Amino acid sequence: MSDSQPAKIIIFLGDGLGDRPVPALEGRTPLEALATPHLDRLAAEGLCGMLNPVSPGRIIGSDTAHMAILGYDPFKYYKGRGPFEAKGVGLEVLPGDVAFRCNFATVDGRKLVDRRAGRIKEGTDQLAAAVNEKAGRIDGVQCLFKESVEHRAALVLRSDCSQSAAGLDHRITEVDPHHEGVDYPDCAPLPEAASDPAAQRTARIVNEWVRLAHEALAAHPINAERVAESLPPANAALPRGVGTAVDLEPFAHKYGLHGAMIVEVDLVRGLGEYLAMDVIDVPGATGGKDTDEIAIAAAVVKALDDHDFVLANIKAPDLGGHDGDVEQKMAAIAKVENAVGYLLEHLDFTQTVIMVTGDHCTPITFGDHTGDAVPAVFHGAGVRPDDVQSFGERPCMHGGLGNFTGEDIMNLLTNFAGTQLKFGA
Amino acid sequence: MSDSQPAKIIIFLGDGLGDRPVPALEGRTPLEALATPHLDRLAAEGLCGMLNPVSPGRIIGSDTAHMAILGYDPFKYYKGRGPFEAKGVGLEVLPGDVAFRCNFATVDGRKLVDRRAGRIKEGTDQLAAAVNEKAGRIDGVQCLFKESVEHRAALVLRSDCSQSAAGLDHRITEVDPHHEGVDYPDCAPLPEAASDPAAQRTARIVNEWVRLAHEALAAHPINAERVAESLPPANAALPRGVGTAVDLEPFAHKYGLHGAMIVEVDLVRGLGEYLAMDVIDVPGATGGKDTDEIAIAAAVVKALDDHDFVLANIKAPDLGGHDGDVEQKMAAIAKVENAVGYLLEHLDFTQTVIMVTGDHCTPITFGDHTGDAVPAVFHGAGVRPDDVQSFGERPCMHGGLGNFTGEDIMNLLTNFAGTQLKFGA
Repeated sequence: MSDSQPAKIIIFLGDGLGDRPVPALEGRTPLEALATPHLDRLAAEGLCGMLNPVSPGRIIGSDTAHMAILGYDPFKYYKGRGPFEAKGVGLEVLPGDVAFRCNFATVDGRKLVDRRAGRIKEGTDQLAAAVNEKAGRIDGVQCLFKESVEHRAALVLRSDCSQSAAGLDHRITEVDPHHEGVDYPDCAPLPEAASDPAAQRTARIVNEWVRLAHEALAAHPINAERVAESLPPANAALPRGVGTAVDLEPFAHKYGLHGAMIVEVDLVRGLGEYLAMDVIDVPGATGGKDTDEIAIAAAVVKALDDHDFVLANIKAPDLGGHDGDVEQKMAAIAKVENAVGYLLEHLDFTQTVIMVTGDHCTPITFGDHTGDAVPAVFHGAGVRPDDVQSFGERPCMHGGLGNFTGEDIMNLLTNFAGTQLKFGA
Repeated sequence: MSDSQPAKIIIFLGDGLGDRPVPALEGRTPLEALATPHLDRLAAEGLCGMLNPVSPGRIIGSDTAHMAILGYDPFKYYKGRGPFEAKGVGLEVLPGDVAFRCNFATVDGRKLVDRRAGRIKEGTDQLAAAVNEKAGRIDGVQCLFKESVEHRAALVLRSDCSQSAAGLDHRITEVDPHHEGVDYPDCAPLPEAASDPAAQRTARIVNEWVRLAHEALAAHPINAERVAESLPPANAALPRGVGTAVDLEPFAHKYGLHGAMIVEVDLVRGLGEYLAMDVIDVPGATGGKDTDEIAIAAAVVKALDDHDFVLANIKAPDLGGHDGDVEQKMAAIAKVENAVGYLLEHLDFTQTVIMVTGDHCTPITFGDHTGDAVPAVFHGAGVRPDDVQSFGERPCMHGGLGNFTGEDIMNLLTNFAGTQLKFGA
């Protein structure tokens, strides 16, 4: 390694940033249609390419994408979203535990009326406490339930003794039917685990927990108030996204870098917790389209004071894509542009290297994630520029990196930063 | 996944489509030199790249290429061409069987005079029946021989009882010497299987079968007639391309798509049979330079009525490459262009996505397959265009996909079509 000072590293992500041509934008993508002088400066001075986080065409989630971007092969390590959700809200997930994402929901009998209980905002801490009081322990299993923002929550099941008869198993079905107007089903073992005692036991406990949680929630004064105010009561909690504890090498150990994560989604926060990174809270980072992007950028600058590496993610572009809303997605991308402007103004890019990209595409015309490649740019210390002059889907197709994958990213960044050890002599 | 209607998928291949610069074309390739407005339209509106079916520079056959293009790693699954040839002519291949491609040939004593018996066209069914009558059973092994088009045939050896002493083994040498004017050799175990009883037994049975088949063929009236007409007699059947049964996950199971195959070569038909795809016959699809490309394109359109996916292949360009004939290859590529024009006219590409490419290159100046990348274009529903304006080897090198491999193709296509499930949350 050279004697020069190693540079600091930033991965700055617009969630769901990439897109497809939009008829209302005359066939341009939002990134191509919006004026983004700061992003264009990165491209003009930097090295561009098209990122396929896993491989070309493969459609992935935010959890699997962030794993891939940080160099943890999701096909090897991913065991469901539940453990990340649980870690993200501050629940511990131990080997042998089974974890779930849950929604507070509104049901009428077993019929699902509102999957998000009117996006309930207040009082979910008290609702969760009532659930834990009534259903905190079922048949030798601890049931740890905790609220997150709005209607979101997580559940961890932990068997008293891992030597017990059956233990727990994640090969079970979901309770949340994902559609309103239908009855929510019982949890049951998956076909491949139909005769597995642990899967049978886990399904039985989930069903009992859902029943007891419903009793506790239906009787709660907060829901009486909501009904009185004509708001949908949060009278059920429906588990989904089951998974088991994963074994991920801590980020600091894998890369020799002291890393921080500034992200707005519990799912990804949970990954940061798993990797033993510092997960930093930013007041004003709402995870919504109203998020304070300058507060996020300022937190990145501050975090670099005592970290070698920061990954930040602004969630808003993904929301615009899911909602199929051109204006909303362009406003969200403008927030990414503003944040990058702040970083350019407040950091010395002879001592800093940044990659700006997205974790996946969420095209407006599709309304969900796609497996299209995401435009990406590397800028700053050590980066050898190409000829690309602006940032966007088509310009970055001409980038010097060509198409690359998530597993290359940390190698590229630590190469530019001068922190990577030579392999060989 | 979005709620929008999933699109239908087409893979349209020109066999051996890619080429190298041809001096007679002033250094252009046939694709570059020929006017191909329909293919150019695909490129201008679509996403281009360079396909390396397995990996850059790797020279492959039509069987291994089609496996790779459909996402079945040939290095993992390929066990010789014999089983595909046998399936392609309608013979069953069971676990433990050993299968061969055969040629009807003309021999004088042991000397190979004509490898294709003058490309015999008539009477091979009667010749095969005579062989099966005389050599249908040797030493506890069924020998199932069946003719295909022209001089082509296949042979399957099946041991009576898989628990028998030695069984069968495919580690044996070929009988067809691939060159005329030399003696055809005896079959023998490969060096690594020299002391293996099953390989020894298999070689012994092959030699006995070749001897008995020669007797049956030499004595057949059809050959007496051919000699009377000064045609080379089909007085031998020479096995080659030995292989064993392969275990491939059915296409419908792997991708959740109901798939059809419209191809002109038994080898690839056999792969389709292996994958439990619907292999569709098209009257007029001769497999030769006179093939009816519009009949093939019309069959693709019709197949999409009740299939989610169709792979079609026009064989003619490969023949032109093997023959080193510029005019012939350009005429064959014109057939691909015509077929694509028919598809553009008869299909709604807001509900259809197509990839057009070749399974490999067969350059005119080389006269055989090479490992050069093949130009490829994706067009239609969901495809984000790049800046490429025409279809050809050099234009596609600037494509947005860069260099990609066969294992990406089904992910790319199902991503564009909206039929792929998200991995992660």
